[in-house]
Amino acid sequence: MSLRRLRISASSIFAFVLILISCAARAQDLQQLTTATREQLDVVKVLIAQESAWNKGDIEGFAQAYKDSPDILFVTNSVNRGYAGMVAAYRRDFPSKAAMGTLSFSDLEVHPLDENFAVVIGKYHLERGKKDGGNAEGMFSLVMQKTDQGWKIVVDHTTG
Amino acid sequence: MSLRRLRISASSIFAFVLILISCAARAQDLQQLTTATREQLDVVKVLIAQESAWNKGDIEGFAQAYKDSPDILFVTNSVNRGYAGMVAAYRRDFPSKAAMGTLSFSDLEVHPLDENFAVVIGKYHLERGKKDGGNAEGMFSLVMQKTDQGWKIVVDHTTG
Repeated sequence: MSLRRLRISASSIFAFVLILISCAARAQDLQQLTTATREQLDVVKVLIAQESAWNKGDIEGFAQAYKDSPDILFVTNSVNRGYAGMVAAYRRDFPSKAAMGTLSFSDLEVHPLDENFAVVIGKYHLERGKKDGGNAEGMFSLVMQKTDQGWKIVVDHTTG
Repeated sequence: MSLRRLRISASSIFAFVLILISCAARAQDLQQLTTATREQLDVVKVLIAQESAWNKGDIEGFAQAYKDSPDILFVTNSVNRGYAGMVAAYRRDFPSKAAMGTLSFSDLEVHPLDENFAVVIGKYHLERGKKDGGNAEGMFSLVMQKTDQGWKIVVDHTTG
């Protein structure tokens, strides 16, 4: 395995695209780079869309980053399984836009495992009023799969 | 992806082998089962060997479960990288057999991603005298890769 690494702040997507264009100009690296970064960029886009959906109060949109399968795993202090239960838990635990607060991802790294799987690690920060539960932050690692519907999270290990 | 699941307590390897034999007797499932369980069993063996090495005070043996690569990731509250640094950190943080205590894994689940990668989730418990740091426990998720040297951990996310 080559754990090719891409670090990117979710908010610096435009900077990333500039770097991509700049790097792509080095013709000798072009083939390798475009192969590596296309999938990394595709993965990052999923997380940026997820962050954006969350911050619109759109749990349905947020959940689209996950594979709609009963087999997906959500690891925290315990293990939860399956897309339907995960969406229900999000709806229960974040019943309003105020409870959802403002989510930001940072220090994202995409590590492709092979053509179909990648590991993503990163940090999250939830900015939220005290009466809505207060701020929260921590780290996550994700296993993502390239599916016909795009890159989807199949294992999520998130800890505060 | 098929997140084929195998739950097993690390200490119940013999029970597992019995289940394997019992299940294999169902001839109609034999081909699928032997394919699925051979790799799952191979993965579990690595973790049982790791647990055993730890409990002999053998950090070198414990570390053999990891891929000897500068690219491996160790996620806790932060991210550490590379085999050499990981081994050095283990030696520093666990300078004696008493400091290492007695490690046990439980609730192990092996989820093959494809032929070359698998996700393992499970719990750890460290039994240790108070003066040596006391007990510790938590959850882990691992990404493991099938290499020429057998299944090796390439991403370890462990939280207490």
